[in-house]
Parts: sequence; structure tokens; C-alpha cells
Amino acid sequence: MSTFMAEFFGTLILVWLGDGVVASVSLNKSKGKDGGWIVVTLAWGLAVAIPAYIFGGISGAHINPAVTIANAVIGNFNWADVPGYVGAQMLGGLVGATLVWLTYLPHFKATEDKETKRGVFCTIPAIRDFKANFLTEFLATGLLVFGLLGLGQVKMAAGLNFLIVGLLIVVIGLALGGPTGYAINPARDLGPRIAHAILPISGKGDSDWSYSWIPVVGPILGGIAGALLFTLVF
Amino acid sequence: MSTFMAEFFGTLILVWLGDGVVASVSLNKSKGKDGGWIVVTLAWGLAVAIPAYIFGGISGAHINPAVTIANAVIGNFNWADVPGYVGAQMLGGLVGATLVWLTYLPHFKATEDKETKRGVFCTIPAIRDFKANFLTEFLATGLLVFGLLGLGQVKMAAGLNFLIVGLLIVVIGLALGGPTGYAINPARDLGPRIAHAILPISGKGDSDWSYSWIPVVGPILGGIAGALLFTLVF
Amino acid sequence: MSTFMAEFFGTLILVWLGDGVVASVSLNKSKGKDGGWIVVTLAWGLAVAIPAYIFGGISGAHINPAVTIANAVIGNFNWADVPGYVGAQMLGGLVGATLVWLTYLPHFKATEDKETKRGVFCTIPAIRDFKANFLTEFLATGLLVFGLLGLGQVKMAAGLNFLIVGLLIVVIGLALGGPTGYAINPARDLGPRIAHAILPISGKGDSDWSYSWIPVVGPILGGIAGALLFTLVF
Amino acid sequence: MSTFMAEFFGTLILVWLGDGVVASVSLNKSKGKDGGWIVVTLAWGLAVAIPAYIFGGISGAHINPAVTIANAVIGNFNWADVPGYVGAQMLGGLVGATLVWLTYLPHFKATEDKETKRGVFCTIPAIRDFKANFLTEFLATGLLVFGLLGLGQVKMAAGLNFLIVGLLIVVIGLALGGPTGYAINPARDLGPRIAHAILPISGKGDSDWSYSWIPVVGPILGGIAGALLFTLVF
Repeated sequence: MSTFMAEFFGTLILVWLGDGVVASVSLNKSKGKDGGWIVVTLAWGLAVAIPAYIFGGISGAHINPAVTIANAVIGNFNWADVPGYVGAQMLGGLVGATLVWLTYLPHFKATEDKETKRGVFCTIPAIRDFKANFLTEFLATGLLVFGLLGLGQVKMAAGLNFLIVGLLIVVIGLALGGPTGYAINPARDLGPRIAHAILPISGKGDSDWSYSWIPVVGPILGGIAGALLFTLVF
Repeated sequence: MSTFMAEFFGTLILVWLGDGVVASVSLNKSKGKDGGWIVVTLAWGLAVAIPAYIFGGISGAHINPAVTIANAVIGNFNWADVPGYVGAQMLGGLVGATLVWLTYLPHFKATEDKETKRGVFCTIPAIRDFKANFLTEFLATGLLVFGLLGLGQVKMAAGLNFLIVGLLIVVIGLALGGPTGYAINPARDLGPRIAHAILPISGKGDSDWSYSWIPVVGPILGGIAGALLFTLVF
Repeated sequence: MSTFMAEFFGTLILVWLGDGVVASVSLNKSKGKDGGWIVVTLAWGLAVAIPAYIFGGISGAHINPAVTIANAVIGNFNWADVPGYVGAQMLGGLVGATLVWLTYLPHFKATEDKETKRGVFCTIPAIRDFKANFLTEFLATGLLVFGLLGLGQVKMAAGLNFLIVGLLIVVIGLALGGPTGYAINPARDLGPRIAHAILPISGKGDSDWSYSWIPVVGPILGGIAGALLFTLVF
Repeated sequence: MSTFMAEFFGTLILVWLGDGVVASVSLNKSKGKDGGWIVVTLAWGLAVAIPAYIFGGISGAHINPAVTIANAVIGNFNWADVPGYVGAQMLGGLVGATLVWLTYLPHFKATEDKETKRGVFCTIPAIRDFKANFLTEFLATGLLVFGLLGLGQVKMAAGLNFLIVGLLIVVIGLALGGPTGYAINPARDLGPRIAHAILPISGKGDSDWSYSWIPVVGPILGGIAGALLFTLVF
């Protein structure tokens, strides 16, 4: 398997499981309806950990353009591979979101609210304030990339590292996810948003393109800042 | 201990713990009543992990006919052992469900609703739509088997693998379990359904045989598809 | 440190943390009030894991007379040490419960209900039915001891075993704890019940001695049965 | 990186994540609002584990003056480094709390209640009773330091120890956190309290200085007591 294919499948699984849990807690009649914040955050953490285990040995399992670009900026990753990685991640996000739609098909019909349906695919800020939302995504992704680089240099028993990476995602979600729903990953937000725009989802509304740049630019710049800070202090 | 006996005891413990948590959150007066989706999904994950630890070294702890058959299809498992494995798993599921009934005996009497009582034993779709329910079980089990094969080739410190397998079950439940209650295992559904039909459960209703083929055929075909996809891409 | 002292301190920490979480979710004005079943079960699992780590290397960290006696019955443990172990465990349970009382002192005054206050110390069945309650404690402790012996023969990376033992406790609580509140340990129930009888708890009621033998005899006999079954099948 | 810098960044991340989760569950319109006790306690545990992984190899990742001082008292740590460590921890707590404020900026405006806003920064006892509150903080931190020293002498696979330390924090929170919100760390309470006093937080009230000494003195004395008990019995 090529590294690009690993990034494609890895991001596909990430978004299938991650957007899947949002579907489960928010769509009508789902058995996970109103499962709560612990359900959402634990699932997103494991949604990162599982593909990290399966594909980490092949591509490093970035499954996040902000991670790929930040690593390239500090010289940890070859710029020539960035377009292939990011393209594969975006495509993986799009297909993963499509699989969520197929998994929960009758529940989209059973759900009236258009925003709830869009919220399965891409993030919606709790309070719409572009400057503040950008700052939150910037800060949370900065900590994510700083943390990933920090964990990357710790000596651990074989295979433990991916579990701890998953727990890093869990705690970022628990602690910093309240304002924006923590995209912290452009492929997790833009890929599914495109899926939302394309797919014939029952009674869907618009795809909120005016907000769409924040979960892309915020994480990319935040990731770069986190990586630069890491190289500065370590 | 023979491999068949390991599969029998492993599936027994799986279903005792897994159906046990459904009893705990749904039967009247249980201290776990309304414990929520996190309680259900965490318990099912550990209900897989614990027998995986205890019996993994003997039989591989498939404890799931969909896993056994999928492994046989791709040449990872001897077809001659399939009937013994599947039979042991089914019997284990039946006995495990009986132990749930014994553990929660007075709570079945304290619970009026017939569907709630059946729901302790076997899965009930949130929205009854056989095509969609089949698709959900097919997709979720496809990811399960793909994930198990993927995790199986990762180098991990001794014993860590079974914990991660348990977490794979947790996240599949959290993310993909909303529509059908994620049987993803014929022995977990058909075995207990037979127990429900046989046992003198206080005030029980019918065993919903019209749905019963979906959590059998969906997982088996999905598991095969996941295994084939895995061999194709890796 | 002697093995007896390890059992004393281990059971003390077990009960301080375990009864502590019951205090937290049930006493008035506690910040953990109504934290739910996941809070209770996760805490009890960790309440076993932490002393298992700290004292496991010294005494094996049984911290449970049912485990000690079951191991003696199958020849895994010296009968001559049983009285010392069980006495240390009982005393540890008593002191641990006293520390819970000290930790939550003003909350006992702020709580009216006498049963709620007793429930912090010892278990109360959800449905009072001595035969059924005995059966539940018998079965759950049988699985506990069977599981402990099973996990004990698995090769794991150093230190992982205690975490998995903690998770075994978590899933037994989640799945089998609904009817009786899963004592599965005489020292966890009788020790604190004696503390409840002795301590000058604000507005306390009786200590429900008529039920007190079930969480003692049920776990001891269940543990023996689980250990015998284990030696039979493995 | 110097040890002081490691303590600064470690405590910064601890408080950013820990106070962040309090913001998430308590500030209006946060997606984590009313996430419950499991959300709070799991996040605080991981908020300790993540910096422990990243900075543990450099400074030991005390990130808690009570831990630093207790180790100095029993001769495990050089008194000459105590002022630098404690100063770095306090500063880290102050900056971490400031980052919480920036992450949740519009949510502070959307929240009326002054006490809720202060509660994001520093602890508030459930029942105001200085003697009892002191005792709770003393006991909980005693167990924390006893537990850390106990875990520190267990042989574990590389990297597992920090995860278990995180779980120790989780269970202390779950079980003993109900009365005071478990500061168990002066830098986690006083640092953010100073931030609360300084920052131009929208509609803030006073910083409750009359209570402020309890989460400082209680943890320090409790930590010393726990360390002394440990050296006595081990």
C-alpha cells in the first residue's frame, strides 16, 4: 500500500467513525441519541487511534493536512509529498462522510432540523464569531501539533504511542472543543462539507460555506505555530 | 482446553457481559438503569477484550462467526474448523444469555415492556427498514473485520493488542451502532434470540424472527467484504 | 512491608476510592451528584487497579477475601495465611470507609435519606429478594475469580496486567452490577458496614444486618466455584 | 529545555486542559455544557498524563508544588530547586488559565453567573466549611502523593507509567472530588485565581481570596503527610 492510499483509508476511517458518532448522538431515533459529550469525544479519540494503528507504519497516519503541513514547515516531512497527502486526506474525508450517510440513511429522513443534519458532516460554532472561532481552532490545533511532536519523542513500549495519541485527541475535545466543535483538521471539515453539498441528503439545507474557511485556515496556521513553538523550546 | 471449548467459553462471557449491560441499562429498578450509550458501548468493548485475553492464546478468540468465516474466506483459517467454531460460538451465546437472565431474574418480572425484555437478548433496529438495517450491519462488520486484520499485523508490546481490539469494538459501537444496535456478530444475536425463545422469561413476547436473519447475514457478508478489501489493499 | 500490611493498605485504598465515588454521586451537594453509572463503575475499576499496582508486588493485592479463599481452595495460596489476609482486608475496609466519612463530612449532614447514607458504606439490593441477590453475587464473583485466574496466565508487558484487572472490574460492574450493586468482595461490604454501625454519622439509620450475609457468603462461594471451574476447564 | 521551562509548559498545558474542561461543561452555549462529572474527571486525568509524557523525561513533570515540596521533604528532590519549580508551576498555571479565557472568549460574555465564571479558574467548595474543606484537600492530596510514590517504584513497560498516573488523577477526582472540586495542586488553583483577578473577564466578580489559602495549604500539608506515610510503611 502506498503512503497516499494509507492517508486516504486512514482519513476515511477517521471521518466515518468521527462523523458517525455525531450522527449517533444527534439524529432522531438513533440509539445513541443524546449520548453526551463523553460519547462524542471518546469516539473521536478512538477514531484517530484506530487508523493510527493500522496505517501508522505505512504513512505515519497524519490523516490531517494541518499535521502534514506543520511537519513540512519544520522540515520533518517532504514538501513534495504534501499535495498527495492532503489530496488523499480530503478524498478520504469525503468518502468517509458518505459512508456515515449510508450507515444512518433512514435517520436523515427521520430528522427535520437542517442544521442538525449539516452538523453530522462539518463543524458549526456554538457562538458564531469568526475572530473568536478562528482563535479557538488556531489554539487547539497548536496544542495538537505541539503534543504530537512531544509524544513522538517519548520512548514507549511498542504500540502504546498510538493509544496515547488517541487520548490527546480525547482531552483536546473534552477541554477545548466546546466553542467550535474542534475541527482541528481541514480534511475532517472540508471533505465532509463537500460531501454534504454533493450528496442527495433527505431535506438538507445549505452547506454554510461562509464559515468553511475557518476550520481550514485556523488549523493549518495553528498547526504551524505549534510546530514552530515546539522546535523553538525543545 | 480445546479451541472449540475456548470459543464456547469466550462467546459465553462476551454475551453474558454484553447482554448484561443491556439488561442493566434497560430493565426496571436496575442500578444501571438509563446509564446511557457510554455505559453500553464501553461494556461491549470490554466484553470482547476480556475473553480475548483469556482465550486468545488458545483459539484466537474469534467469538464471532463473521470473523471466523471471513478469515476462512481469505485463507487465514481452516474451513474444516469453521463448523466447530461457529457451533461453539452459537452455544456460548445461548448459555451466556441464559446467565444474563439468571443474573437479572427479578428485574425481568419488574419490567412490563415485552420489547425491552427481548432487547436484552437480541438487537432491535431503531428504524425498521430491512434494506437500511442490512446495510448498516454489513458496513459496520466490514469495518470490524478490516480493523481486526489491520490491528493483527501491528507490532505491539505483549498483551496490548487485545486492549486495542476492545477499543475498536467501543468505537464501532459509539459511531456506527445508532441505527441497529450493532449486532456485528451472528452468535451475539441468534444465540441469545434462541435463548429468548426457549427460556421461561416472565411476561415475554415473541422473538421477532422476521428480523433475525439480518444480524446473521449482514455481519457474515460484511465481514467477508471487509476481509477481501483488506487483502486487496494491503 | 509485610503482606498483611499490603492487604490492609490495599483494601483501605480500594474502599476509600470505591465508597468515595458512591458518596460523590449520591450525597447531597456533592459536585459528582448524579454522575451516573459510568462514574461509579469506572471508579471502582480504578479503585482496584491503583492498589493492585502499588501492592501487587508485595502481597499479590488480593484485597478481597473471596479471592484469597478461592485461591487457597485450588492450592494457589497458603491456607495458613488466609486468616491474616482476610483480617487485614476487613480492617482495611473499615478504615477506608472511615476515610470516606471524613472526606465527605459536611455532605452526610446535608443528606436526609438514611438509606442513601448507608448506601455509601455497603451494598443495598435494587430488588430485595435474598435468593436472587445471592445468585447475582455468586455469579458475578464466579466470573471475577475465573477472569482473574485467566488473566493471570496471559503474558503481558510489565505492568499492563493490573490495568486489565481494573477493566475486568469495570465491565463486571457495568454488566452485572445492576441488581445488587456488585459487592463481589466481603471486605468491601462487611468492613464498611461495621464502620457504618460504629461511626457517629449524622442522622444515620440501621446497618441492615439482615442483608449483610449475602455480600459475604455469595462472593465467597461464587469465588470458590469460579476457581474450581477454572481448574476444571484449563 | 531546562527543568524549569518543562515545569512551566507542563503546568500550562495541565491548567489549559483542566480549566478548559470546566469552561466546557459550565459556560453557556458550550457544546460540552452539562457534560457531567465523567467529562470533568477524565479530562483532568488526561490533562496530567499528556504533559507527564511530554515533559516527564526532562523535569519529572511534577507540575504541582505539593508534589515538589513533598518530594523535597523526604529527600527525593533537591530543596535548592524548589523555588524555581514552584515559581514555574505558578506561572504556568497563570498562563494556562489565560489560554482558557482566550479559547472560550465569547462564552464568558454569554454566561451571566459570576461564580460560574470564577469556577472555571479556581475551585469552589460545594459546602463552604473551611475545616472540612481543608481536611478533604489534605486527605486527597495525601493519597495522590502516596500513590505517585507507590506507582513510581513499579516496574512497567516504557511509557505505561504516565498513563497510570493519569488514571490515578481520574479516580481521585471521581471518588474524592465531590466536596471541594479537588484542587490537590496549589498551582492549579492559585495561578488561575491570580489570572482571574488580573484578566479583563467580561462581567466577572471577586476572586474569593478568603478561600484561596485552603487549596494551597491543604494540598501542601497533605502531600507532605502522604510522602511521610509512604516512607514510613514502605
